[in-house]
Amino acid sequence: MPTLPESSRLHRQIEFIVEVDRLKEVLRRNVLTVSRRRENDAEHSWHLCLCVLVLAEHADAPRLDVLRVLKMLIVHDLVEIDAGDTFAYDTEGASQQHEREGRAAERVFGLLPDDQARELRALWDEFEARQTPEAVFAAAVDRFQPMLLNARTEGHSWREHDVKASQVMARGTPIREASASLWEYVANMIRDAVSGGHLAGG
Amino acid sequence: MPTLPESSRLHRQIEFIVEVDRLKEVLRRNVLTVSRRRENDAEHSWHLCLCVLVLAEHADAPRLDVLRVLKMLIVHDLVEIDAGDTFAYDTEGASQQHEREGRAAERVFGLLPDDQARELRALWDEFEARQTPEAVFAAAVDRFQPMLLNARTEGHSWREHDVKASQVMARGTPIREASASLWEYVANMIRDAVSGGHLAGG
Repeated sequence: MPTLPESSRLHRQIEFIVEVDRLKEVLRRNVLTVSRRRENDAEHSWHLCLCVLVLAEHADAPRLDVLRVLKMLIVHDLVEIDAGDTFAYDTEGASQQHEREGRAAERVFGLLPDDQARELRALWDEFEARQTPEAVFAAAVDRFQPMLLNARTEGHSWREHDVKASQVMARGTPIREASASLWEYVANMIRDAVSGGHLAGG
Repeated sequence: MPTLPESSRLHRQIEFIVEVDRLKEVLRRNVLTVSRRRENDAEHSWHLCLCVLVLAEHADAPRLDVLRVLKMLIVHDLVEIDAGDTFAYDTEGASQQHEREGRAAERVFGLLPDDQARELRALWDEFEARQTPEAVFAAAVDRFQPMLLNARTEGHSWREHDVKASQVMARGTPIREASASLWEYVANMIRDAVSGGHLAGG
């Protein structure tokens, strides 16, 4: 039950909505297919939601709570407002990533009324733990979408950061766990990128 | 039932996902609170989804299907890939908007397998018709979020386009229809913007 009066509850919610406007300023490594500018976390999060609407039928899990998948994806990158984007293939940055993101989650979700802060934090924890079918599917589209953008921009960020096919394959583990048909598509896409000279083999 | 074989169904879905990457290139009139660059349709769509997660409890409707609200908002601006953004207060552009957007919906949703094209088109039609509680709430956050960004950027696009308070109030009709408490907040916000010199009275 909310402990705040209705009006101050609404004020806290709206201050949270203003704060997360900053997610649009967090740049990722991959670029857009047309303008080739770097993608930001907010538009990336929207693209993942759209992937779920279109691709959820390919989940191998017998039942998928699509609403929970969408909720997870809407909030999954909010911690990067404070913690910044950690490049998928940056093993050094990854070592401190968990601690930085935990602190960010405390502050950002903590702007909300307590019950909502707990609910969204739990969704983020579920996404990070990747133990439920919903979290596995959310992680799968979060891995798939940047691979697709890379494949359709001649391997832009793969080439820029000397990424190898074996690293992309390893990064795709959640896709393999979530959907056999999507994984088959991805494995072909990676092979084509190598043979097209857009991704280093090995 | 799908009439395409699994693999070509997946290919059509993925080509749609690549095509809608273009939504990130469609610029709106309002600007972000920090960098003051213009917002694009994709990050705007994400922000609306987040508003729904946080504000759905304020809907006056006795029951709201949050999943359907989110689905509508994820696809609500896709027609602007072809039709472009029509500024909220541009009455001339608005007169041809419906026809332009209808053609865009045919093409963009038509990239999908037929059953999904029909489903997403129906969601867009529902959003446009604004007759269900879900469509009214979706329209309310679509009106609220740009007003909030304007209010937090000293009325940036209001001042740039000589918008008056009465126009903003009229634009807020779906908010009034969706939520008494959110409308009260908005009415105060508009009053404050006028008294702060960020929005023309009258």
